[in-house]
Amino acid sequence: MAMGNAPGPFPARESSAMSRFWSPFVETLAPYTPGEQPRGRRFIKLNTNENPYGPSPAALEAMRAEIGDTMRLYPDPMATDLRAAIADAHDLDPGQVFVGNGSDEVLGHAFNAFFRDKGPVRFPDVTYSFYPTWCGLHGIPFATVALDEAFRWRADAFDGPCGGIVLANPNAPTGIAAPLSAVEAVLSAHPDTVVIVDEAYVDFGGESAVGLVPRYDNLLVVQTFSKSRSLAGLRVGFALGQPELIEALVRVKDSFNSYPLGRAALAGAQAAFEDRAWFEETCGRVIVDRDQIAETLQGLGFTVLPSCANFIFASHATVPAEEILSGLRERGILVRHFPQERTRNWLRVSIGTATECDALAEALSSVVATG
Amino acid sequence: MAMGNAPGPFPARESSAMSRFWSPFVETLAPYTPGEQPRGRRFIKLNTNENPYGPSPAALEAMRAEIGDTMRLYPDPMATDLRAAIADAHDLDPGQVFVGNGSDEVLGHAFNAFFRDKGPVRFPDVTYSFYPTWCGLHGIPFATVALDEAFRWRADAFDGPCGGIVLANPNAPTGIAAPLSAVEAVLSAHPDTVVIVDEAYVDFGGESAVGLVPRYDNLLVVQTFSKSRSLAGLRVGFALGQPELIEALVRVKDSFNSYPLGRAALAGAQAAFEDRAWFEETCGRVIVDRDQIAETLQGLGFTVLPSCANFIFASHATVPAEEILSGLRERGILVRHFPQERTRNWLRVSIGTATECDALAEALSSVVATG
Repeated sequence: MAMGNAPGPFPARESSAMSRFWSPFVETLAPYTPGEQPRGRRFIKLNTNENPYGPSPAALEAMRAEIGDTMRLYPDPMATDLRAAIADAHDLDPGQVFVGNGSDEVLGHAFNAFFRDKGPVRFPDVTYSFYPTWCGLHGIPFATVALDEAFRWRADAFDGPCGGIVLANPNAPTGIAAPLSAVEAVLSAHPDTVVIVDEAYVDFGGESAVGLVPRYDNLLVVQTFSKSRSLAGLRVGFALGQPELIEALVRVKDSFNSYPLGRAALAGAQAAFEDRAWFEETCGRVIVDRDQIAETLQGLGFTVLPSCANFIFASHATVPAEEILSGLRERGILVRHFPQERTRNWLRVSIGTATECDALAEALSSVVATG
Repeated sequence: MAMGNAPGPFPARESSAMSRFWSPFVETLAPYTPGEQPRGRRFIKLNTNENPYGPSPAALEAMRAEIGDTMRLYPDPMATDLRAAIADAHDLDPGQVFVGNGSDEVLGHAFNAFFRDKGPVRFPDVTYSFYPTWCGLHGIPFATVALDEAFRWRADAFDGPCGGIVLANPNAPTGIAAPLSAVEAVLSAHPDTVVIVDEAYVDFGGESAVGLVPRYDNLLVVQTFSKSRSLAGLRVGFALGQPELIEALVRVKDSFNSYPLGRAALAGAQAAFEDRAWFEETCGRVIVDRDQIAETLQGLGFTVLPSCANFIFASHATVPAEEILSGLRERGILVRHFPQERTRNWLRVSIGTATECDALAEALSSVVATG
């Protein structure tokens, strides 16, 4: 288990000394680096796990209907209708639902609300790289748990006292899903510790822990509208948990920003959530294409981890990941590379449309042949 | 000067003990209470300083144009185009502009970036009530500066060492604007201290400090799209300052939420900012109606503070504010009451359309007559 506090050193500032105006902790921050959002040249964008299929037409219509004179008015600070829609779908009460400006904001508030001034927070050594960043922002120590060679964790890997546990399930950037029984084992083993289960990708084949919310008061499930609901451009995420946890999130949110979600975001997210048919059809298509492109890559000499997400994580037997990365970029395709030690020979490839998958396969076979 | 740390006691939780799951500071939070956003019954809403005139038609058109398939893609995390538009209009560089999810988010980040682990922050005892809340969130001590009987501050009231200064100018809920020379005196007197000038209402008659940005490296000016740009429902605010200050805000933002502004927010805010004619015409109408309703209220026995904002702050000679508040509510009009000691006999009334102002005048004359 590796220990950390504020995350690693931040690239040196251009100015030599820390500003006398900054709060001291600002110098130690290691901000998250999002995937490239290219401006100008058109790429096939398989680098930020966006959904290749557009949002629900009903969601687009609901957003358009909000764009009018009433935009001069503040939105509902409680997001009453959206929370009710999410609660209904999961057989929960609106008091068990918290919404925010993307699941990143929800997670940022959750780290603050549950993990500050406690023991070190545990999460896998290969996972969503924003977790150590939030720890840095809130001054929370953390301890990473080493995944095994197959990038999996054992429930007992989190044993021992700690200030909190965070599990991305399916995990990123690996795509590997832990069975619900393993998640439940962690919840049972740590009854006094908040366990955040980050289910950004769960709708592409994972088992959700939402059904455990009524039985575990230490469980917070976080989901997003950015992936399976095709609304990365809208910025909406949510958390599900018992009211005691939701109250803490509301207190933190209401001490930061009363109105995190605008009118179009509230309306669009609600309509997207209610359009179950669109959601199921588009997720289903991504799953089919994912399994097919995984097979194609294996045929080209890649090891592909079993994915329950809308991306695959792949490593080639002979061609280094960085070479593939730049070869694909030259061919107009962006994928994501994480240069940390354990992931530096792997690439994370988002699942595009069938046409984009074909273009990827063609480009990869050319890159690998010349590699 | 009154001192504070975490703000006053929070209303007792329904459950008796603090949750074992919460970070300890969560119990001490005193969340901001936004004005009521009524659901159901139609009110004349003069309680949250929204603009009575709708947003720029060009802004609505720009938002509608964003509502489509590309909502599946993340927005530009740097808000490049919006920041360039704001910079251009103020003869600044994009590196001197920071944007966020409403000016509340911008201010929340600024308190964190500049005031954490420093000396007590100073702001007036009667001002925007979110300031002590952000102090509570970030564990920042504060010291309020008593305004005089006319609700004004003298530049030397902020003298002495402190960790930061926050001036709402025009102030809320009073509407009183300090002259730019007084703001500059505070900036000069505290060269090593960040001074945040919160200009949420400046476009209705205040003197902006934006022109001082190139000369004072300790100045951060914060503005919003929610008032003069009629986009409270969109959630966009921004800060202007020298790059050293902006860098700290970017670090904090990128350690919390990479994409605070969605695609419609970016496009709508940019178009609203560029539609100078709409902005000037609607602000002008609010100013004319404000000055007229202030005169009407004086005729009804109210003291009305001189306002440079889109609201007035008024107190009646004989009828208590709470009685007027409820009398107006019975007549379908919402205004805002702040029950703290110095403001409890005052009401803050947003400027509505001319028709709404007439309805207000009629209702007030009836309430005052029966009061």
